[in-house]
Amino acid sequence: MAAKNAFYAQSGGVTAVINASAAGVIETARQQKGKIGKIYAGRNGIIGALTEDLIDTGKDSIAAIRALRHTPSGAFGSCRYKLKSLEQNRREYERLIEVFKAHNIGYFFYNGGGDSADTCLKVSQLADTLGYPIQAIHVPKTVDNDLPITDCCPGFGSVAKYIAVSTLEASFDVASMSKTSTKVFVLEVMGRHAGWIAAAGGLASSKDCEIPIVILFPEIPFDRSKFLAKVDDFVKKFGYCSVVVSEGVKGEDGKFLSDQGVRDAFGHAQLGGVAPVVANIVRDGLGLKYHWGVADYLQRAARHIASKTDVEQAYAMGKAAVEFAIKGHNSVMPTIERLSSKPYRWKVGMAQLSKVANVEKMMPKNFISKDGFGITDKCREYLAPLIKGEDYPPYKDGLPNYVRLKNVAVAKKLSDFTI
Amino acid sequence: MAAKNAFYAQSGGVTAVINASAAGVIETARQQKGKIGKIYAGRNGIIGALTEDLIDTGKDSIAAIRALRHTPSGAFGSCRYKLKSLEQNRREYERLIEVFKAHNIGYFFYNGGGDSADTCLKVSQLADTLGYPIQAIHVPKTVDNDLPITDCCPGFGSVAKYIAVSTLEASFDVASMSKTSTKVFVLEVMGRHAGWIAAAGGLASSKDCEIPIVILFPEIPFDRSKFLAKVDDFVKKFGYCSVVVSEGVKGEDGKFLSDQGVRDAFGHAQLGGVAPVVANIVRDGLGLKYHWGVADYLQRAARHIASKTDVEQAYAMGKAAVEFAIKGHNSVMPTIERLSSKPYRWKVGMAQLSKVANVEKMMPKNFISKDGFGITDKCREYLAPLIKGEDYPPYKDGLPNYVRLKNVAVAKKLSDFTI
Repeated sequence: MAAKNAFYAQSGGVTAVINASAAGVIETARQQKGKIGKIYAGRNGIIGALTEDLIDTGKDSIAAIRALRHTPSGAFGSCRYKLKSLEQNRREYERLIEVFKAHNIGYFFYNGGGDSADTCLKVSQLADTLGYPIQAIHVPKTVDNDLPITDCCPGFGSVAKYIAVSTLEASFDVASMSKTSTKVFVLEVMGRHAGWIAAAGGLASSKDCEIPIVILFPEIPFDRSKFLAKVDDFVKKFGYCSVVVSEGVKGEDGKFLSDQGVRDAFGHAQLGGVAPVVANIVRDGLGLKYHWGVADYLQRAARHIASKTDVEQAYAMGKAAVEFAIKGHNSVMPTIERLSSKPYRWKVGMAQLSKVANVEKMMPKNFISKDGFGITDKCREYLAPLIKGEDYPPYKDGLPNYVRLKNVAVAKKLSDFTI
Repeated sequence: MAAKNAFYAQSGGVTAVINASAAGVIETARQQKGKIGKIYAGRNGIIGALTEDLIDTGKDSIAAIRALRHTPSGAFGSCRYKLKSLEQNRREYERLIEVFKAHNIGYFFYNGGGDSADTCLKVSQLADTLGYPIQAIHVPKTVDNDLPITDCCPGFGSVAKYIAVSTLEASFDVASMSKTSTKVFVLEVMGRHAGWIAAAGGLASSKDCEIPIVILFPEIPFDRSKFLAKVDDFVKKFGYCSVVVSEGVKGEDGKFLSDQGVRDAFGHAQLGGVAPVVANIVRDGLGLKYHWGVADYLQRAARHIASKTDVEQAYAMGKAAVEFAIKGHNSVMPTIERLSSKPYRWKVGMAQLSKVANVEKMMPKNFISKDGFGITDKCREYLAPLIKGEDYPPYKDGLPNYVRLKNVAVAKKLSDFTI
């Protein structure tokens, strides 16, 4: 049987290590001579497949592909695009098959989170639904850490490290200033549904170096007076306080705390973050001087401070995906199985995609402290290994030497397709 | 003559490397047996001197003082407190002399920016004004990079590196997302009067790796339509755009752009940053999807990505301050003298404090490109060496192993003093 070509694409919000998974896929697939032919990437995720906008990764050198391991973001472009069901949009599935056939694609590697797992699942069913033989493997990725079955998600460990380091550093700063100036620092972090990232802020405090940190989780409805009492308490005891607030925190009315109906002088709605809202609450409630920051993309793009554990796992997931495909698997996702926390040991596992797609893993209740403002020892034990180790990119002239691929397009064989 | 004791204190906003200067002062002073006796630090800057709240740095080990070199923030606490003139507050000067006398202090090292240089200058004049012999040396520090005479200010290079790296990383991120989602990323950076820090964002783009970056400088009045045209232009050409905005940007009416008279649903004034304001302008003017971040304290506390050049210069300034004192100087400040940019060579110089205090160095006009949205080659040549080199702190369990000193108080000899 002649070798089939492979298709790889990146989907959803990108991370500091999704390209490490890409390197894992491409480097491993390149070693499968006779089994895997060309390795194509979709420009902007599944959109690249639908529009026949394929990239020939073979045009990039060994060194360039290796450099993906230390380059953040999605080197082939990502997308936010979810395939509808076969019943709702049969046309798209038929188009996918048309493109796959035209380019002899037999392997489909999709690198993303929960929504992308659903897309990958639908592709994996093409043999059954439309008679096109394909092996679709999902490569896990999401800073939200909310995929089920796998112990953690590549991308999360590096964000967790960034938030822990930043909280530590900013807390040292506000501690220095607190005598005559700023007493409260508020840091807004990602996490619309689950408090995984906010929880990582708690790692900045340890037995050796205690830091007063109040965490506001999306899982806990915001209670203004309890919050102010906690901050007041910390400021009285330590002289200062840091607040790590998840963007998804809601009030007791179920509305996002960031959605304060804020208007500018002309009455136009203003979209702000939750950090300034919390900072204003501190000002109004306690009269304390504050500073606030919003990490936004910086947190998930910060390859310069990526977790070594995370980089290794991201690469391993890409590698395992190809190995699974070569072994004949379809509709699966490699996972990270934790064998022990101290010392940290893990291995690659395998999950059925049908059990992954559209399932959101929330943070266990016993990871949040009783008062709702901190993390428990159990949470700490879970998080600690994920931020361990540094994996610095090479630098040139003071800046990380991140790679930009050539991304040479494959000649089109089909007519245009409008999505 | 018996050895005199030394007093060192930190003042104003802290930085990633002000403790490196502290290490330079303390380690150098410790070598001056017979000339310098005890090395005291003021708890919270000059307030520590006024309230006789002195720290005996001798209680901390060689290793702890060495670790200051890789620890951000102000290890002894900082303050925002400016001495009034002798005429306005003679009581404070008399108190300083009382404390200095009680603790046999003959050397005064003050580590800060422009306001602190003024305080240091006033202390240096105590011999003339009140007959107390003291040698006061200012150790330069400020992320604002606005001290005169010195080529650059310790603290700035590391912020510049952080902003350049973050802009690079976030730009890679938004580029990946731009096909179907975010097209504009806005990053707010420090700099109320001068655009030095914002300018550093421009370093993220280079000939090897061009990135569309719009910089909003406090020096250039914000012109909404020109700004929108520039962003639109970049998005059409590159598919995305990054905006680096200085917190101090003002509109043509002279008012801070961040001061939009924003009110919450109850009509309360809301203090927000300038990043969401700029993001809203992009949304309203161009209808593009955006993300925004506010680096705030993260940028100046980010010792994990400090510039090696900056760390070395910060240490050298502390060391030189002690050497100047030993040589008998008073009322001076060590400076960084640039000898050449390519290759970068510099040496320690000396400035009279009277020429430093209350003088603000603005960014040269020819550092900003003609359209007002970018940096010139001249600016690039100036900035490039300042972010060069990495100087990573040691890590433990995935986090930088920053030191916390014992900060043992010296027994008080005087009655209380209220400031």
